[in-house]
Amino acid sequence: MSDPAASAAPRARAPLMALDDAVARLLAEAAPLQEVEQLSTFEADGRVLAQDLVAGLTVPPRDNSAMDGYAVRLADCTGDAVLPVSQRIPAGTVGQPLAAGTAARIFTGAQVPEGADAVVMQEDTEAIAGDGLGQVRIRPVPRPGQNIRRAGEDVQAGTTVLARGERLTPQALGLAASIGFAKLPVVRRPRVALLSTGDELVMPGEVPPEHMPPGAIYNSNRFFMRGLLQRLGCEVQDLGLVPDRLDATIDALRAAAARNDLIITTGGVSVGEEDHVRAAVQALGTLDLWLVAMKPGKPFAYGSIASPSSRREAPNGRTPPWPPRQAGGEGPVETKCHVCGLPGNPVSSFMTFLLLVRPFLLALQGASRTAPQAVTMRADFDWPRPDKRREFLRVRTTAEGGLALFPNQGSGVLTSTVWGDGVVDNPGGQAIARGDTVRFVPFSAWLA
Amino acid sequence: MSDPAASAAPRARAPLMALDDAVARLLAEAAPLQEVEQLSTFEADGRVLAQDLVAGLTVPPRDNSAMDGYAVRLADCTGDAVLPVSQRIPAGTVGQPLAAGTAARIFTGAQVPEGADAVVMQEDTEAIAGDGLGQVRIRPVPRPGQNIRRAGEDVQAGTTVLARGERLTPQALGLAASIGFAKLPVVRRPRVALLSTGDELVMPGEVPPEHMPPGAIYNSNRFFMRGLLQRLGCEVQDLGLVPDRLDATIDALRAAAARNDLIITTGGVSVGEEDHVRAAVQALGTLDLWLVAMKPGKPFAYGSIASPSSRREAPNGRTPPWPPRQAGGEGPVETKCHVCGLPGNPVSSFMTFLLLVRPFLLALQGASRTAPQAVTMRADFDWPRPDKRREFLRVRTTAEGGLALFPNQGSGVLTSTVWGDGVVDNPGGQAIARGDTVRFVPFSAWLA
Repeated sequence: MSDPAASAAPRARAPLMALDDAVARLLAEAAPLQEVEQLSTFEADGRVLAQDLVAGLTVPPRDNSAMDGYAVRLADCTGDAVLPVSQRIPAGTVGQPLAAGTAARIFTGAQVPEGADAVVMQEDTEAIAGDGLGQVRIRPVPRPGQNIRRAGEDVQAGTTVLARGERLTPQALGLAASIGFAKLPVVRRPRVALLSTGDELVMPGEVPPEHMPPGAIYNSNRFFMRGLLQRLGCEVQDLGLVPDRLDATIDALRAAAARNDLIITTGGVSVGEEDHVRAAVQALGTLDLWLVAMKPGKPFAYGSIASPSSRREAPNGRTPPWPPRQAGGEGPVETKCHVCGLPGNPVSSFMTFLLLVRPFLLALQGASRTAPQAVTMRADFDWPRPDKRREFLRVRTTAEGGLALFPNQGSGVLTSTVWGDGVVDNPGGQAIARGDTVRFVPFSAWLA
Repeated sequence: MSDPAASAAPRARAPLMALDDAVARLLAEAAPLQEVEQLSTFEADGRVLAQDLVAGLTVPPRDNSAMDGYAVRLADCTGDAVLPVSQRIPAGTVGQPLAAGTAARIFTGAQVPEGADAVVMQEDTEAIAGDGLGQVRIRPVPRPGQNIRRAGEDVQAGTTVLARGERLTPQALGLAASIGFAKLPVVRRPRVALLSTGDELVMPGEVPPEHMPPGAIYNSNRFFMRGLLQRLGCEVQDLGLVPDRLDATIDALRAAAARNDLIITTGGVSVGEEDHVRAAVQALGTLDLWLVAMKPGKPFAYGSIASPSSRREAPNGRTPPWPPRQAGGEGPVETKCHVCGLPGNPVSSFMTFLLLVRPFLLALQGASRTAPQAVTMRADFDWPRPDKRREFLRVRTTAEGGLALFPNQGSGVLTSTVWGDGVVDNPGGQAIARGDTVRFVPFSAWLA
C-alpha cells in the first residue's frame, strides 16, 4: 500500500458479494454452447433440449377408452339394461359406428366408436353368453363421457410440447416419444477439466491409510466433483494433482484450456501466498477473486482463458454449430475457456459447486431453469449465533416432518453432507429458533 | 362362477390392496442380489454399497488450520500484539513447536504447530517486513481454538463411515475417498427387461406422425422407463413390442427370464380378455393381479418365473457371490426372475413404477432406504371430489411457496408429469381446500 498510515491499520477486509449477485454474474458469462447433437430419445436423459419440439399430431388422436369394458349410448342405459354386444374393439383397431340399442366390447386405449357416449367399466357389468358376442347387463346408469379420454387431452397438434432449454427427465423423454420423436436435438455436453492443488493431497490408493505421511490428507473433492459434473451432463477431464508451483500450474491450465469449456480448480483461490492458481490464470487470461457472502464458502474465483478458435475439433457425429441465440453472431466462434476456482475445504467446495458452478453449467447448456426447487420446512433445532454471511446448514428431514441439524457445521466435515439430506438456506444474521419455518433445499433437487 | 344366483349379480369388485401393503409385499420378495463388484470410487455414483466402510484413519489426522493466517499462543495476544514470525507452515508440511512470544505463518489445511492454541486469519493481521520472516501485528484478541479444525472432527479411525446399503451419492464418494478408498464394493446392477404389449403401439421413428394409422399411438412408456431404470443403476434389455398373442408373449418372457432379474411389462395386466401377459407368465411361473388403492394406477401384477440356476453366467470382472444376508444360505443360488406388470396408461405406468417398482429395485440392491424424501407444502388449489383411492396429483411448486394443480389429472396425460415438478400424495377420500397442508413428493426425490 502506498499510504504508510493505512498500512499500519489491519488490512481492510474486501467487501463481500451477495450470493445472488455472484450467480447473476456467472449466468451473464455463460454464453450457451452452440453445437447441437441429434441423440436417440433413449439416450437424451438429463440433456438440455436445443430446439422446441412441436407436436405433429394430437394425443390421443381420437376419443378412446380409459378402461376395459363396454361402450354404450346413454339413451340405452336408463336403468338395469341388457344390451346385445354388437362388436368387439381391441386397442389398435377401429370399430364400426355403434348401432342404437347395442353395446360394444371395448378395451383400454381403443378408439370409442361413433355414437357411443360412455364406457362402462367391466367390473360394473355382467356378460351373458348367447348368440354371437352375447349380451351384457349394465347396472349403474353411466354419466356422459364416463371413462372416455378425449382426443387431444394430452397434446394438441401444432403446440410446443417441450421448449428449447428444457432439461430432459425420463418423463419428458416419454412425452417426446408420445409425439413421435425418435431423436432429439440436445446441446452438446460441456467439457470440464478438474484440477486440484495442494501438496498435502494424496490420491486414495496411492498410499494406504496406515502409511499416510504427516500433514497429508486424501483428495476427496475430485470424487464428488466428477459425480456432480456427470449428473449435469458434462464430460470430465481429470488433470490430476498439480504441484503448488506456478510454472506447473500454468502448464496444466494452458493445456486444459485448449480442450475444455470450463476448468474447475479446487484449492488455491484464497488469499494466502501459497496459492498459485490465481497467478497462473492471470498469466494466461483473467481471474477475479470474489468473496461471496456464503458459509461454507466465501472465496471463489471466476475468470477465463482465451484460445485460438481452431483449437477445438468437432467430435464425430456432431452437427454444425447451433445458430447463436444472440444477434450479431458473425465472426469466429467463441472459444473462451471459463475458469472457476473453488475453495479447497470439502464442504466449501461442495456447496460452492452446487450454488455457483451448477447454475453456470446449466446455463452453458442453455437450460431455462438453473435454480433448484426449494421448499419450506420446520426447523427442529436452534441456531442462536448465525453468521453474517448467508449460511447453508446441513440438516436431515425427520420422521416428524421437521429438520434436524448436523452437530458440526465445519467446512471440512464432509460427513455432514452424507448424514444430511439437504441444507437450510439461512439469510445472513438470522437466528433460528426451534419451530421456525426455514427454506430447505434437498440435495436431491441438486442431484437429479 | 358355480352359483347361478351370484353370477346374476354384477361381478363382485375385488378388494383393493393398500399401497403400503403392496410395497411391503414387494420388499419381502426382493431378496438382495448376491454378487459384489469392486468399482473405482470414481465410477460408483448411484450404486449401493455392499459392505460397511470402516475408517482406517482419522480425518483430519491432526489439528489443522481452517484459514490462511498466523498460528499463535493466546498468552501472547492479550492486546495489540506485534510478534516475530518464527516459521512458515504450508499445507502438507509439519512445523516446529511454536516458540513462546512468536507467531507461525500458516496456510489452510496445514497442521497447527504444538503450543499454538488459535489461528488468526490473515485479514485480521498486518505483516511488518523485517529480518527473517518479519513480524506480524495481531489486532483482535483471538478466542481459544479459533480457526483450528480439530483432529477427528470429520471421521474417527475405526468407525463405520458408510454402511452397507448406502446408496452412493457424489458426496458419499468424496467421503469414501477422504478415508482412502480408491475402490468400493457395490452390489451388481440389476438386469431388467422391458416388454410392452399393445397392438396399437408404434415406435417413434417407424411411422411419421402424419402417417399414423387410425387407432395407433406412439409407445412412450419404454422411454421414461429406461431412463428411470438407468437412474436406479439397472442394466436394461429392451425386448421391444410383443404382439398381443399368447404364444409370442410366452416366448418373449421365457427368453427374458433366462437373462434378467426382473421383467417389467407395461399394458396387458388389467382385467380385459385382450391381455395375454398374465396367462403367459402363469404358463411359466406365477403371477398375481393386485388391485392397488392408488390413482393413477390400480392394476399391478407381481409374479416370478423360476429358471435353472446355471442359466446366468457371471459377467467378467465380478467377484464371487456376496455372502447371503439371510441365515441358511446353502443350496443353489436363487435364480428367480421377478415379473412386474404395470398398467399401459403412461401416467399410471410412471407412477406405479415410482411407487412400487423403484423401491423393489432398490431393495434388490440391498439399499437400506427405499422411500423418497417427502415434505409438507401448502396446496394453492381445491380438490373437492377426491377419489376413494390414494391419489397422486401432479402439481408444480409456485414462486409463492405453494402448489398449483395441473388441470387434467387423467392417467393418459403425460404432460402433467412434465409440467409438474412433483405430486401431492393425498389419502383416499380426503378433499383438499386451498391453504391446506399436503404431503408433497418432488419428482427429483425419485429421480436423484
